[in-house]
Amino acid sequence: MMNKMMNETLRTITERYSCRAYDGRLPEKEKLERIAVAAVQSPSAINRQPWLVNIITDKDLIDEMDAEGMRILAQAEDKAVYERFMERGGRLFYNAPCMFLVLKQPGTDLDCGIVCENIALAATALGLGNVICGMAAIPLSGENAETFKQKSGFPDGYEFGMSVLVGNAVGSGTPHEPDISKIHWIG
Amino acid sequence: MMNKMMNETLRTITERYSCRAYDGRLPEKEKLERIAVAAVQSPSAINRQPWLVNIITDKDLIDEMDAEGMRILAQAEDKAVYERFMERGGRLFYNAPCMFLVLKQPGTDLDCGIVCENIALAATALGLGNVICGMAAIPLSGENAETFKQKSGFPDGYEFGMSVLVGNAVGSGTPHEPDISKIHWIG
Repeated sequence: MMNKMMNETLRTITERYSCRAYDGRLPEKEKLERIAVAAVQSPSAINRQPWLVNIITDKDLIDEMDAEGMRILAQAEDKAVYERFMERGGRLFYNAPCMFLVLKQPGTDLDCGIVCENIALAATALGLGNVICGMAAIPLSGENAETFKQKSGFPDGYEFGMSVLVGNAVGSGTPHEPDISKIHWIG
Repeated sequence: MMNKMMNETLRTITERYSCRAYDGRLPEKEKLERIAVAAVQSPSAINRQPWLVNIITDKDLIDEMDAEGMRILAQAEDKAVYERFMERGGRLFYNAPCMFLVLKQPGTDLDCGIVCENIALAATALGLGNVICGMAAIPLSGENAETFKQKSGFPDGYEFGMSVLVGNAVGSGTPHEPDISKIHWIG
């Protein structure tokens, strides 16, 4: 099943992994711009393009959202998520210098997923670490949500879709093991 | 904004288009297998991999679903969708010989979108036409839904996610124009 057919695109898909350690330095603007273009090249239902791609390069803002998210997790009744992040270094966003914040119109999660994968693959292809990260939802839905929504550019009609963290990876990582038992042939 | 930075993966993302004309011949099995692997290499929330990838290569079954879908659309009160497909040749699945039917666990649309984009990009990279197509939902939710669900391999706990049609393109196509006004820099 894991056949040998390979090319650069298939290699990018194969080698993409969820990077959870960044050096904190902002990558070249030209690379981030190219990733943003890949994001908006995503297909969407009836070509509605029901997204916004807000690229946060203000590390202070990312760090503020990180601290707010950790504060909320620390206060949660179930401490499991908090403890997992404490074990990983105590940072929700892994010291990433850049967050691609994908906003969506309600009911367009599938389109949003497509955008996230284009961002992740474009970043991988440009040699940048990346991880699709839902944790940005936490500071964006807590008691200071309005402040963070304003700082990160939410207009009316759009809600949090997903975030993709991008930056220079510290160390390297391996992709998850794909479960090929999920594949079935009909016919 | 549309900067010049380019490589094979970025080119695949840039050149992918929604193919709406197929020659009906099944591509090499090795290519379809490789696309299936790319599908299950998708990242997912907490690595749950909440999908199944059913690859329908039975053209008769695809044609039956096509006919059932067109029959349902013809009976709909609003004939706009039916007429759009009649103008495009009267076939819901454009004579595609292969359907990647992505099933999902409830509430995992975003993960499903990621899988669809990996399928679309892998197919593009292997020279195959493809289109992410929601129309398969129609025969799978009509009065003969149970029959078609059984034939296309729905187990308990999974629902229709999306389909991606794959095959040899007739002619060529161009991608939609990306709307770069969707990109905003914060920071």
